[in-house]
Amino acid sequence: MDWKARLLLLDGLNPSMDEGGRLVWGTLADAPEDAELVFLGLDRSDGGEKACFACVPPEGDARPRMANPQLWALMTALAPDQLALYGGARSLVDWHARHRFCAQCGGGTTIAKGGWQRTCTACGADHFPRTDPVSIMLVEHGGKLLLGRGLGWPEGRFSALAGFVEPGETIEEGVAREVLEEVGVVVRDVRYILSQPWPFPSQLMIGCIGQAEGTEITLDETEMAEAHWFTREDVIASLEARDDAPMVSPPPHTIAHQLFRWWVAQ
Amino acid sequence: MDWKARLLLLDGLNPSMDEGGRLVWGTLADAPEDAELVFLGLDRSDGGEKACFACVPPEGDARPRMANPQLWALMTALAPDQLALYGGARSLVDWHARHRFCAQCGGGTTIAKGGWQRTCTACGADHFPRTDPVSIMLVEHGGKLLLGRGLGWPEGRFSALAGFVEPGETIEEGVAREVLEEVGVVVRDVRYILSQPWPFPSQLMIGCIGQAEGTEITLDETEMAEAHWFTREDVIASLEARDDAPMVSPPPHTIAHQLFRWWVAQ
Repeated sequence: MDWKARLLLLDGLNPSMDEGGRLVWGTLADAPEDAELVFLGLDRSDGGEKACFACVPPEGDARPRMANPQLWALMTALAPDQLALYGGARSLVDWHARHRFCAQCGGGTTIAKGGWQRTCTACGADHFPRTDPVSIMLVEHGGKLLLGRGLGWPEGRFSALAGFVEPGETIEEGVAREVLEEVGVVVRDVRYILSQPWPFPSQLMIGCIGQAEGTEITLDETEMAEAHWFTREDVIASLEARDDAPMVSPPPHTIAHQLFRWWVAQ
Repeated sequence: MDWKARLLLLDGLNPSMDEGGRLVWGTLADAPEDAELVFLGLDRSDGGEKACFACVPPEGDARPRMANPQLWALMTALAPDQLALYGGARSLVDWHARHRFCAQCGGGTTIAKGGWQRTCTACGADHFPRTDPVSIMLVEHGGKLLLGRGLGWPEGRFSALAGFVEPGETIEEGVAREVLEEVGVVVRDVRYILSQPWPFPSQLMIGCIGQAEGTEITLDETEMAEAHWFTREDVIASLEARDDAPMVSPPPHTIAHQLFRWWVAQ
């Protein structure tokens, strides 16, 4: 046992946290005997140098997990630096749990390079953790913002449109295609604003703004429940969670919330 | 046979092209009987509407392919719109060829949703084409640019530093980490410039610029052969392929070349 190593304690894939909203750490002795360990990096925050690890969950947990209300509450309670650390760790161990087999030949894979790779025991192919680029966009026209409510979302909850960047397209092309598909609106002058990792299971959210050529909406009803144009005052009211707000904004730890804040500050 | 459908003819994963640098198309009758077909989209370029497909290569070709000199020559000969179409198609069929098995359970997978998905015949898990976000960065200090030569690259060939954006980090954090790891330089004020898809096998290249805090280089010799600071005049000479250029720039269809052009135009 090396006292300079520590183990991130997870509850399945959920974070364990103390009353101060900080992640709880154990030692490598807390890991099951046969657990695969992922190296998260070196922590030098207290002047020393500790190697940080997390365990890959057991085989039974091999399904992708979406964010649920319980998890969202936990995330809101975590301090920002702790949320970032948790997010990266969660993405990695979740990827390992769902990639115990080789996509090329079907053979078993084993963890390699401290958890930043898996290698096939049959054909030798290397596999690497996956991060999916997703564009999320403010669509603007005449000082209003186009926001949508996805299928199955609570009444009144609106967010920025978003979608995976597909093979063969730029970020800007992805934004334009997604908006055209979801709401039938043509956008131009797409600009990058900011990015954020999102660990459900492992996305790189790429926040942009684009100018709509018109305001007429043709909804793709297989993806969206509704979409509307909101004023600056509407967005401010929702960020302040006021009673008269015409919609509910996404919570503060989301990139959509950060994009809303960026937009009203313009 | 639907006369409104057409099949992109590939030579393995390489493009087939006519003398005008345009991709060659056949009909669905040109596809082998048992071939998996990927739907590329609708072509409305000649006023009509044709469904475009490509075949997944046979099982023997299930290895990732890197760009080689022959392929680079073909890419240079393709018109830009044709290169974009080829790149997207290549990424997709290559992904299918390398994902005939389920990473969760090892079972066989079959093509679904026109080729934008594979589904496991054993556990039912869905798998989606992968695109890896990669940051590629101009590192600037006092009007000079920091460029590197990768291990195994020809003498004199330099490009912008680049690396995968890892789970849990933003684009900007990825740029800073990569530069610190590869050349030991601290960068700040990272800004996004432009993006480009890159189909070897399927990357989203995210071009940025950052300001170096110093010029001292500490090379990671497991990744880089050398790294140097180049003047604006050096970069212009290399873009013009002049005899006195102190280095060779990447070819015009690369994002690094576009970044160099953007930088000298500032």
